[in-house]
Amino acid sequence: MIIIVKEKVRYYETDMMGIAHHSNHIRWFECGRSEYLQRAGVDLNELMKRGIIYPIKHVSCEYLHPIYFGDILRIETTVKRLTRAQMVCTYRLVRDIDDTLLAIGETQNVFALQKTGAPTRLDLENYNKLKVLQNSDT
Amino acid sequence: MIIIVKEKVRYYETDMMGIAHHSNHIRWFECGRSEYLQRAGVDLNELMKRGIIYPIKHVSCEYLHPIYFGDILRIETTVKRLTRAQMVCTYRLVRDIDDTLLAIGETQNVFALQKTGAPTRLDLENYNKLKVLQNSDT
Amino acid sequence: MIIIVKEKVRYYETDMMGIAHHSNHIRWFECGRSEYLQRAGVDLNELMKRGIIYPIKHVSCEYLHPIYFGDILRIETTVKRLTRAQMVCTYRLVRDIDDTLLAIGETQNVFALQKTGAPTRLDLENYNKLKVLQNSDT
Amino acid sequence: MIIIVKEKVRYYETDMMGIAHHSNHIRWFECGRSEYLQRAGVDLNELMKRGIIYPIKHVSCEYLHPIYFGDILRIETTVKRLTRAQMVCTYRLVRDIDDTLLAIGETQNVFALQKTGAPTRLDLENYNKLKVLQNSDT
Repeated sequence: MIIIVKEKVRYYETDMMGIAHHSNHIRWFECGRSEYLQRAGVDLNELMKRGIIYPIKHVSCEYLHPIYFGDILRIETTVKRLTRAQMVCTYRLVRDIDDTLLAIGETQNVFALQKTGAPTRLDLENYNKLKVLQNSDT
Repeated sequence: MIIIVKEKVRYYETDMMGIAHHSNHIRWFECGRSEYLQRAGVDLNELMKRGIIYPIKHVSCEYLHPIYFGDILRIETTVKRLTRAQMVCTYRLVRDIDDTLLAIGETQNVFALQKTGAPTRLDLENYNKLKVLQNSDT
Repeated sequence: MIIIVKEKVRYYETDMMGIAHHSNHIRWFECGRSEYLQRAGVDLNELMKRGIIYPIKHVSCEYLHPIYFGDILRIETTVKRLTRAQMVCTYRLVRDIDDTLLAIGETQNVFALQKTGAPTRLDLENYNKLKVLQNSDT
Repeated sequence: MIIIVKEKVRYYETDMMGIAHHSNHIRWFECGRSEYLQRAGVDLNELMKRGIIYPIKHVSCEYLHPIYFGDILRIETTVKRLTRAQMVCTYRLVRDIDDTLLAIGETQNVFALQKTGAPTRLDLENYNKLKVLQNSDT
């Protein structure tokens, strides 16, 4: 299942080269990931109240074409690997108006205890919600 | 007492007009305010562990001259009004190399309980630390 | 005419107090202002190609209630004063789900020459577009 | 040659997990890279005036330990590969007080023409400045 969010490039996201600064891609990936969790029914706020955090361990991004102020981006998020210990997502940033692929990327998040930072496992209920969405067709 | 911090303008702080984006001024004010608290010996992390937060209620900024990538800024922070309920700071952003005044601003912060958001009063020990720094000459 | 944009609060916009950082309000105001210009048919990119920039001279924000991750914000933008030399906008940030007013603010932008920073006047065609939208009812 | 810059973690760089948001690491890498260019005597502003930009093509970051508000970071930047067409840098983010390695990363930048985005080659004078610094011992 690919989850899609659309975002319009904001003025403050540009830099003096006249294009969106490359750190925003990492933030758009996060928008996609947040939407994925929400559609699966996993509530990060509720996890944090139970002392579980969801830190990122690795990120990579390949920049294919510049992104401009006002562009409508389609953020396409796929869960590539999911266990109760970690979640690996891949992303495609696409210019909505002409389907140009602008960037691709990947992140690895893990589940951890807020107090100690030690790795933990996601509870089965939330894990299953994510698994169902990952395997769903539409 | 005026507390001074120097910051170099970062590339990602620029926008497509070729100047530092105006939201950064608000962030530089915060750098100045954080430094003020630290020099006074007030630890925000420790306050938060006791359930006290320090939300902002009002901010204003007047932009006098553009700020460019690589500029060294002098952030000058003064506490204009201090009670156990609130702290009003004023700021001057100065280009260090030629003393040009680039922006001025003001913020009002209050002390509040994290759980409810209700106003609270700063404990006397921390209040006194801030008062001593405010009244100190050097 | 009030122009409305909706934005969902992003994870990276939060800070360690668990609420959206106060610099984002300034950025949401900009989202509202950008939308206003776009709906009026004024193209900032095209203005910049003609050497005209649109720097901000003053901003203020009053923070009424905290804003949280995942909140849907309604950014309501009104042009309060418009001449060929400047544009003053006011903003209301409203929590969409229950119409709670979260923050109000105001900005003043001017038109200037990119090369020198000297004040300039907006061309009549673009000025009229903005004026029409300001006076329109729907 | 390893170029070192120190940066103090700013309050707005934190997120609701209580740690610095992972997009900041990408920005700290940029701080290191900007410093590298400056120490070599390469002026990005001057390059841009000649129509040459320096876009990023690839970034990756591995997050080893969380970074907290107020931490002093040592950003260590090394040029791993340098040609007139591209520059690959590696980074280490180190907590200054106890030398804990917090994150490592890598970026690839290329030189391109601002007008068309087409690849270009860095002029020999600037290339040599970068090469000298890369091979220098201190």
